[in-house]
Amino acid sequence: MKKYAFYIALIVSFAASGALHYGHANMTLQFAVSAVAIIFVAGFLGRATESVAHHAGERIGGFLNATFGNAAELIIAIFLVKDGLFDMVKASLTGSIIGNLLLVLGISVLAGGLKFKEQNFNVKMAGHNASLMFLAVIALIIPAVFARSFTIKETSTLSLLVAGILIVAYLLWLLFSMVTHRNMLSDEVVEHGGEPAWSMKLAILFLIVATIMTAFVSEWLVGTVESFTAEFGLSELFVGAFLIAIIGNAAEHSAAVMLATKNKIGAAVEIAIGSSLQIALFVSPVLVVVSWLFGRTMDLVFSFYELAAIAVAVLICKSISQDGQTNWYEGVLLLVVYCILGIAFFLV
Amino acid sequence: MKKYAFYIALIVSFAASGALHYGHANMTLQFAVSAVAIIFVAGFLGRATESVAHHAGERIGGFLNATFGNAAELIIAIFLVKDGLFDMVKASLTGSIIGNLLLVLGISVLAGGLKFKEQNFNVKMAGHNASLMFLAVIALIIPAVFARSFTIKETSTLSLLVAGILIVAYLLWLLFSMVTHRNMLSDEVVEHGGEPAWSMKLAILFLIVATIMTAFVSEWLVGTVESFTAEFGLSELFVGAFLIAIIGNAAEHSAAVMLATKNKIGAAVEIAIGSSLQIALFVSPVLVVVSWLFGRTMDLVFSFYELAAIAVAVLICKSISQDGQTNWYEGVLLLVVYCILGIAFFLV
Amino acid sequence: MKKYAFYIALIVSFAASGALHYGHANMTLQFAVSAVAIIFVAGFLGRATESVAHHAGERIGGFLNATFGNAAELIIAIFLVKDGLFDMVKASLTGSIIGNLLLVLGISVLAGGLKFKEQNFNVKMAGHNASLMFLAVIALIIPAVFARSFTIKETSTLSLLVAGILIVAYLLWLLFSMVTHRNMLSDEVVEHGGEPAWSMKLAILFLIVATIMTAFVSEWLVGTVESFTAEFGLSELFVGAFLIAIIGNAAEHSAAVMLATKNKIGAAVEIAIGSSLQIALFVSPVLVVVSWLFGRTMDLVFSFYELAAIAVAVLICKSISQDGQTNWYEGVLLLVVYCILGIAFFLV
Repeated sequence: MKKYAFYIALIVSFAASGALHYGHANMTLQFAVSAVAIIFVAGFLGRATESVAHHAGERIGGFLNATFGNAAELIIAIFLVKDGLFDMVKASLTGSIIGNLLLVLGISVLAGGLKFKEQNFNVKMAGHNASLMFLAVIALIIPAVFARSFTIKETSTLSLLVAGILIVAYLLWLLFSMVTHRNMLSDEVVEHGGEPAWSMKLAILFLIVATIMTAFVSEWLVGTVESFTAEFGLSELFVGAFLIAIIGNAAEHSAAVMLATKNKIGAAVEIAIGSSLQIALFVSPVLVVVSWLFGRTMDLVFSFYELAAIAVAVLICKSISQDGQTNWYEGVLLLVVYCILGIAFFLV
Repeated sequence: MKKYAFYIALIVSFAASGALHYGHANMTLQFAVSAVAIIFVAGFLGRATESVAHHAGERIGGFLNATFGNAAELIIAIFLVKDGLFDMVKASLTGSIIGNLLLVLGISVLAGGLKFKEQNFNVKMAGHNASLMFLAVIALIIPAVFARSFTIKETSTLSLLVAGILIVAYLLWLLFSMVTHRNMLSDEVVEHGGEPAWSMKLAILFLIVATIMTAFVSEWLVGTVESFTAEFGLSELFVGAFLIAIIGNAAEHSAAVMLATKNKIGAAVEIAIGSSLQIALFVSPVLVVVSWLFGRTMDLVFSFYELAAIAVAVLICKSISQDGQTNWYEGVLLLVVYCILGIAFFLV
Repeated sequence: MKKYAFYIALIVSFAASGALHYGHANMTLQFAVSAVAIIFVAGFLGRATESVAHHAGERIGGFLNATFGNAAELIIAIFLVKDGLFDMVKASLTGSIIGNLLLVLGISVLAGGLKFKEQNFNVKMAGHNASLMFLAVIALIIPAVFARSFTIKETSTLSLLVAGILIVAYLLWLLFSMVTHRNMLSDEVVEHGGEPAWSMKLAILFLIVATIMTAFVSEWLVGTVESFTAEFGLSELFVGAFLIAIIGNAAEHSAAVMLATKNKIGAAVEIAIGSSLQIALFVSPVLVVVSWLFGRTMDLVFSFYELAAIAVAVLICKSISQDGQTNWYEGVLLLVVYCILGIAFFLV
């Protein structure tokens, strides 16, 4: 019953979004409807990815999940890159990172903490995640620091090289966490709902369909952002970093909160932190390479505000996760920092 | 015997300070005498607060101690705010934070470490304190980062909103540490000297008297600061951040050192770190709200030097406290950082 | 056999370097040969220091190792200071710090991790090292922050005072780690190869000879740096921070990697982190004092790039070392950060 409701909502929101787009409807309405549609197509894409991953076996499946888990964000961002909206791309990457580290994790920890006095997870995983988060921060700060005295060409070169190094580091991380040190890190496996409903062929077909649908809705959404931003007098930074990020992460969000309330805080942490690491260490550098293939290289130079937001999010998230325990107040702390950043970005 | 000596010193220093103030005596003499007087009235205020807290029962008493533990600093700062000396307020808040984290904790750890090879305290408390310290740093850094491109009005709005969020976060922290997770955090209860000497009525009367005395001496002290600063060619930053902060924290100081030498390092850490958290997360935002009620909002934008000093103090303090163990060299490290900051502020 | 090969290489490279220097040969050739020679004379100096230390007994020997372990770097830097090449000095100090923390430790951890799934070391030592690394970062950041609004004279004063404080802090650290808390910190003693081959008198003679040889080769090397830099269009920053630092640390490098592959990761960590701490907390301040004795005080104000590189290196190194465990991927992380910094410095 519930399952059919999802597909009906998917088709209706997709169709409505398309109709409004091609019917040149009011831009704010277009934005709202395509925002709803993207939540459903992202959910559909997530299901299809998991289903294909399931058929592909544990290792390749894990790899697929780890690299295409943020496929929706990646597709949205590619359309933004294509249109040369680099600032919006960086804002949405920033928003995705801090949204996962502060909002998704914060609500999960708070929701779990209101039900259970203390929740525990694998402290080694926390330690490695922290080191990777620091790498992410370093990889974003160094180009910004040096770009001050670089020419545009030097900045592009640095960005491309750093992007290449990050992709290699991310692939080695997958090798480490999935092959050589698999057992050390995981305490609770993220459950993907048992047997998939679809056969392999159907799953692949759905993956293709979902990708195409995501691409369409992404383009429709991106097309409305500028006029929506202007209409309400919002900054691109705020729209990219908060609105688009919250929409794009809706699926992770509901999954993580649900796991936390089932006392599987380890899995919730893995989704939230894992997703933000994927954005920082894989999606961002891939976008740099993609932009280079499009003929105009996007650099990795984030604004001072964005860097401050990411650094601050990593700092508090690391401080909270390093003891392998969570409680309701730690959720409050994460959300408090998210609110402070949200207000600051809104006022810019 | 010792007890009477305290009250005699209190009355004599208070009377002398008042006499010099109304007799328009030499400003440097006024400064010196009122500085001595404030140490005694702050001590008196602390005793009265604790006594009322004792009668009010564990919960309300704990709340009173946690919110009015820095009443003397708060009163001094309100007089500075009233006179519009916002820079001096921020300098003294900065000084109070770093003074507690580096000087008070440093001397306590050193004194305890010279007597005991290793001293241990609750590592969970240390972890939570570290997260709160990071929140404090974040809450002070974000307005400073964004104020660069904000109008004065936007900065005021941001400061007021952040102040409101911090006060809520602090009250939730009290709920967490005193109600929902009371037993998890405390290892050593700070002893308040057994039965109070005063009845409830007398305690309340003394609290009122002590508050009024503190207010008077604060005003006398603040009135002399500018000419004292000019007389010796000192910067306001140095006077606010070092001299006034040391004077205002004298009570915490002696209590923490005494506890450390009795091998109650956990209680000493709680006083030193707890006091600096109270300043950052409660006193500072309350002052912003107070200034707003006075009709001219003080913003939360601390200078680059002050932020660097606070960040550095939190960093070294967190690094030293996170293992739940202290030794004499860790005290040296804290004091070394305090000296470096002191020299830098002195030379500004 | 192998032993004689070392001395032959030492004498041949030293003689060749001298011949090229006095024969006014091609500058690039001079640079290359003196770079090879310095690796051997630094190795010789290291052996002689250890041998004297061995004869001097445990305490004084440990002290000698801890203070003169970076004698080669110190001598090179003194020649740079004498020539007033302060920027090059700071670049080479920066390079030595990040080279030890990232390159030496990274290759050691990776090499050890490829052979052993997990390697463990004393977690208390890691905690203390982290606190000292933070002190080093603080001591370098504070002068840079305050130098913005200081006169040159004030900056010199601040640098000299901070240098004095650091030397005292370092000596107290030796007292702590070698006398009062000796047993707490060490898990694996760094083995110095059993009985020394030389008698005490011979060792002292060799120490003197090695120091003189190091001084000569250092001067020859420093004399070629400027034209080598110009020839290949490299920045002084890159040459100082990467080339000279790698050459100067070759001895530590091979020792640490060898120990890691013998599963003595604790000793390898001690060499790498210990050496960078020695540079930051002892060699740097000593150079400030030396420059002051030469009549022109070198300040402790490092460039923004250098500070970013050191802070980043300390951050990732601390994150990786704090759990007292290493694996191959942590080595990769360290090397990835080193590569990113190397590219950025190369492009400056």
